[in-house]
Amino acid sequence: MSGYTASVVGASGFTGGEVLRLLSGHPEMAVTQATSRSYENKTVGSIHPNLRGMDLRFSSPEELESVDVLFACTPHGVSMEHIDAFQDAADTVVDLSADFRLDIESQYDEWYDGHNRPELLDKAEYALPELNRENLPGADIVASGGCNATAAIMGLKPLFDGDILGGGEQIVVDVKVGSSEGGAGGGEASSHPERSGVVRPYAPTGHRHEAEIEQFLGTGVSFTAHAVDMTRGASATCHVYPEEPVSKGDLWSAFRESYEDEPFVRLVAGGSGVYRYPEPKAVAGSNYAEVGFELDPTNKRVVVFSAIDNMMKGSAGQAVHAANIALGIEETAGLEFAGLHPVGAP
Amino acid sequence: MSGYTASVVGASGFTGGEVLRLLSGHPEMAVTQATSRSYENKTVGSIHPNLRGMDLRFSSPEELESVDVLFACTPHGVSMEHIDAFQDAADTVVDLSADFRLDIESQYDEWYDGHNRPELLDKAEYALPELNRENLPGADIVASGGCNATAAIMGLKPLFDGDILGGGEQIVVDVKVGSSEGGAGGGEASSHPERSGVVRPYAPTGHRHEAEIEQFLGTGVSFTAHAVDMTRGASATCHVYPEEPVSKGDLWSAFRESYEDEPFVRLVAGGSGVYRYPEPKAVAGSNYAEVGFELDPTNKRVVVFSAIDNMMKGSAGQAVHAANIALGIEETAGLEFAGLHPVGAP
Amino acid sequence: MSGYTASVVGASGFTGGEVLRLLSGHPEMAVTQATSRSYENKTVGSIHPNLRGMDLRFSSPEELESVDVLFACTPHGVSMEHIDAFQDAADTVVDLSADFRLDIESQYDEWYDGHNRPELLDKAEYALPELNRENLPGADIVASGGCNATAAIMGLKPLFDGDILGGGEQIVVDVKVGSSEGGAGGGEASSHPERSGVVRPYAPTGHRHEAEIEQFLGTGVSFTAHAVDMTRGASATCHVYPEEPVSKGDLWSAFRESYEDEPFVRLVAGGSGVYRYPEPKAVAGSNYAEVGFELDPTNKRVVVFSAIDNMMKGSAGQAVHAANIALGIEETAGLEFAGLHPVGAP
Amino acid sequence: MSGYTASVVGASGFTGGEVLRLLSGHPEMAVTQATSRSYENKTVGSIHPNLRGMDLRFSSPEELESVDVLFACTPHGVSMEHIDAFQDAADTVVDLSADFRLDIESQYDEWYDGHNRPELLDKAEYALPELNRENLPGADIVASGGCNATAAIMGLKPLFDGDILGGGEQIVVDVKVGSSEGGAGGGEASSHPERSGVVRPYAPTGHRHEAEIEQFLGTGVSFTAHAVDMTRGASATCHVYPEEPVSKGDLWSAFRESYEDEPFVRLVAGGSGVYRYPEPKAVAGSNYAEVGFELDPTNKRVVVFSAIDNMMKGSAGQAVHAANIALGIEETAGLEFAGLHPVGAP
Repeated sequence: MSGYTASVVGASGFTGGEVLRLLSGHPEMAVTQATSRSYENKTVGSIHPNLRGMDLRFSSPEELESVDVLFACTPHGVSMEHIDAFQDAADTVVDLSADFRLDIESQYDEWYDGHNRPELLDKAEYALPELNRENLPGADIVASGGCNATAAIMGLKPLFDGDILGGGEQIVVDVKVGSSEGGAGGGEASSHPERSGVVRPYAPTGHRHEAEIEQFLGTGVSFTAHAVDMTRGASATCHVYPEEPVSKGDLWSAFRESYEDEPFVRLVAGGSGVYRYPEPKAVAGSNYAEVGFELDPTNKRVVVFSAIDNMMKGSAGQAVHAANIALGIEETAGLEFAGLHPVGAP
Repeated sequence: MSGYTASVVGASGFTGGEVLRLLSGHPEMAVTQATSRSYENKTVGSIHPNLRGMDLRFSSPEELESVDVLFACTPHGVSMEHIDAFQDAADTVVDLSADFRLDIESQYDEWYDGHNRPELLDKAEYALPELNRENLPGADIVASGGCNATAAIMGLKPLFDGDILGGGEQIVVDVKVGSSEGGAGGGEASSHPERSGVVRPYAPTGHRHEAEIEQFLGTGVSFTAHAVDMTRGASATCHVYPEEPVSKGDLWSAFRESYEDEPFVRLVAGGSGVYRYPEPKAVAGSNYAEVGFELDPTNKRVVVFSAIDNMMKGSAGQAVHAANIALGIEETAGLEFAGLHPVGAP
Repeated sequence: MSGYTASVVGASGFTGGEVLRLLSGHPEMAVTQATSRSYENKTVGSIHPNLRGMDLRFSSPEELESVDVLFACTPHGVSMEHIDAFQDAADTVVDLSADFRLDIESQYDEWYDGHNRPELLDKAEYALPELNRENLPGADIVASGGCNATAAIMGLKPLFDGDILGGGEQIVVDVKVGSSEGGAGGGEASSHPERSGVVRPYAPTGHRHEAEIEQFLGTGVSFTAHAVDMTRGASATCHVYPEEPVSKGDLWSAFRESYEDEPFVRLVAGGSGVYRYPEPKAVAGSNYAEVGFELDPTNKRVVVFSAIDNMMKGSAGQAVHAANIALGIEETAGLEFAGLHPVGAP
Repeated sequence: MSGYTASVVGASGFTGGEVLRLLSGHPEMAVTQATSRSYENKTVGSIHPNLRGMDLRFSSPEELESVDVLFACTPHGVSMEHIDAFQDAADTVVDLSADFRLDIESQYDEWYDGHNRPELLDKAEYALPELNRENLPGADIVASGGCNATAAIMGLKPLFDGDILGGGEQIVVDVKVGSSEGGAGGGEASSHPERSGVVRPYAPTGHRHEAEIEQFLGTGVSFTAHAVDMTRGASATCHVYPEEPVSKGDLWSAFRESYEDEPFVRLVAGGSGVYRYPEPKAVAGSNYAEVGFELDPTNKRVVVFSAIDNMMKGSAGQAVHAANIALGIEETAGLEFAGLHPVGAP
């Protein structure tokens, strides 16, 4: 019986709808408010067809109800402006935008447009439990990570934890992402005739998520993203050249050690059958990250693969996971969906 | 706490995997056995990547364990051959093949290849709760319906319930289905280069599901199926010309009356926004059927739309739904997943 | 050696780009002007990436050069407003919008918004050579047909030519179309996350193309269109119930007689292999129409299939084909591309 | 006026069909024979639906007719076995398999299974005109390159020509390819439900095309391929770290110098609009390679993008292009098709 109340601000967008979906099946949280300026008074099911069964209408973001946890699903820049109102309304604010992801103002200024509440930056906790679980209980502000950053961090973390990389190496992160990353609406490049069937470089260099990755791994990466033909999903292929020789056994040990107790990580590295490496298709709709690797002795290279659903582990799922920990609820509550097989371009 | 035990025979196929997925999250049933001749001793996750977290290996179908309910996910013809063994192992057998869908031997002979246990045909109960809920409690054999038949029946039933159609009219059922209908493996026509992007007529006439539809609606239909580019989903568009004039209000009344208490039916007929009529995309992964209609006064035609996930409402979901009722469990147990938004070609 | 000059008005849209593509490889026509208000002075290749090799920039539609043939690729309503300027600039105007497709003003008023040059309606010639070849030579205004109407007409014509249908029967036309039909830009419903993977009813009744079909077949049809996941292509499945018994031989005769001398019609009806019936995939990028049929003796039904590339036979290809005939050029000039195999979602 | 005769051995496969398509529209070559063991006596249009208009039937490969040029489209290993018969039948043999791509036997042995005609290896000419145009005229054996190797070489070549790379650097080549690469048929991994919507690592390390790339660039590369959801197309993203500082101007110069006279290379590097970098979608069906780059000053990295149609520039188009040069025909003959816009997942 739902012990906690929750609200979703900016609930008509893709991530807002995803948080609503997760909370509608959550055993311990109940949604009491979903806001949308554009669709005030419409049912949430009129925008999110999967939620037609939910008895809830969008209300104005001007009048926030008091709740235990507020999920801010607004565009970048909105949360920092309204953070006081959000904190007045809720003990815990989980922000799904980029506003509170970086700790240091100068970093924010470099990659974004200037922060109007810089004093809060180092008080916000990064949501990814695999990085930051110990700091989440009782957190006031939780910043859900960027989807591409999450994919890259999940893949690379064991290499740093296991001292396979020291931080001085060049790290290539080649990412492939689905169209939901662009949000609802989208412009001409997102229209179906132009966007379907693509392998399209975008943000080939200088992607903002480089900052997040650097903040947590302690080293910069060479990041390049490609739009591919799926709606959900982010897949990161990381190419690294460790300075010291490394064996497959070393890699297995490092990945197992980093993730053996993690409820939402699947280690997929070789084997037989169709699904031998991480694939976004295999985690679509779920909060799982698949991670795996291959060794390239000829080139002294390690290739690391990581796959997530950008809407889930890369956004709304990560947010609910962190909220569960922040509130002291069972970590996996509301996040048990395992994914589908087969599934097409999710 | 799982009160009932279940087994899945033929668990390495698509529908077998889907039943496993549903049972793995079912609050009242626990899977104790999953059989596969080809993959004996392999983990179920090695075939169904979404089930990597499930601690279960395929075992031989030769040694069936005793369970409360057995789900037979074998190809057409296998269940009728092994039905005694299945019934020895389980009080309730839910068959997902076509073997027990038709009541009358002559009908079976006409559309299939001859039945070797014809005396069981009229003892098996058709699984679709919207048609046959009252006969499911305590059923020995339950026959899960065909996906295309289910889509068509769900759309057309209100027209018969509401006396909008009498049975003498020509009924065109134009169906669009995803590639999972062909099962794992598939031949050249199912290979990605030949199958992607298609609108391909198949079974343009004489589809076997005509028999099922006729059995339940009491009238034949003119059925034509097209393969389209999705993995999951079946969409039926039914074109009918009622003999008596009919209004939009009549249609609303008929659909509401047929389905108002149904937990897995969504009525979607017009309105604003992107999703105005039933769409398979909106129900992917869920047990929901969306049904809706439009009136064509110029041509005195009613167009009925129906959309399901062929793997769920059209197969495994329907089977678990029926098993819930057969065993006296809460109907919706294990079937609460609402679907995703957005989702691509599911 | 390009004997004729051509211009394309509204050349930055999808059909405009397609006409440019065809003319760039045309042995007898040379493009001297391509207009676009929005992209004046940009190269045509900056909008149409396949035309990067073409040395041509968009110019203003205010100053039309004198040419032999002008292709108007503007939205509905623009051609009727500018028709005098178009005719001043060119002996032959080929209009790809709906402005001049209908012959009778009252019909136009019923389906569109009122015509401001109604006196020209019955002077314009419908472009589809299979219907109207004899009237095209020397035509002043040629009206390229609607893509869905073209698909339906191509499939149904032999049934009328061959007296299999008399005109009193109900005719169901169930169409599946690609996203390019909506043109460049598009709204939220056309954004990739919402549009990919769909089987989405749109214009379920009352589609404007019913008027065109009726004009040429002499009888109304019950038309319903569905958006499916392809960019190019229109597929029409027509379900008809002839009053008199009909054999497969009758159908073969009717289709052969209607189309045996047609250079852009392929009759595909059964046989073995993957491609047994018309498919849009098989004609993508080409000017071909595939037509075929199947007999349903149980229901006394004939199912007719027709597949075209909506951008080609359904628009730009039909336009160039008609222009070739109007100018007295070899019919197939510039239209020889046969399509690709394999090809995905074209 | 077809001056030359041509035959296609192994003509029922994808590349065989593509060569047939190109030759059917070629002004200087006429196909006199197309062989297929499996489909002897069937029309080529029964397998390749786009070739229904072609009046040609498959014949036995046992009786090869005498022609000017023979295209061998057989699986790896067949050409080296039958090379004498091929050379008896034709002055020029163009082999589309891997049999004659490598010059050195030891290299072949390392990456493949042993060559039975090693003495011919260094007599065969590599087909890619951008690498080897001067050696093609009059060649006896021409070896069409691998699609992934072609994509990588086309992107990287200017960096070596322009001394931006010296050969000692680590080069990451991250490739995304369509399903036609696997050929007709394919196994379970190629079935539509398993293959659609994927971003699937395959050959993550140790891909055979590394050998070809090394042979021509003089340095090894770290190659990783991913299957993505398209039928045609290969896209290579190459990440390199030049030892000496490099400017955008240097890159422009290098790419322009390498390719300014090349008829089938489009340089696409930035600019405005939707299509700012190379995309396989933009070249689908054409023989064009798109190449481009971006500079990453933060990481001292150059990112190079290259996109081809794997069936065309990566196979059949390259083969016909080389044959044109070998026979002294106009280079671009039969290869003028510019691609389509818009086009979906080609």
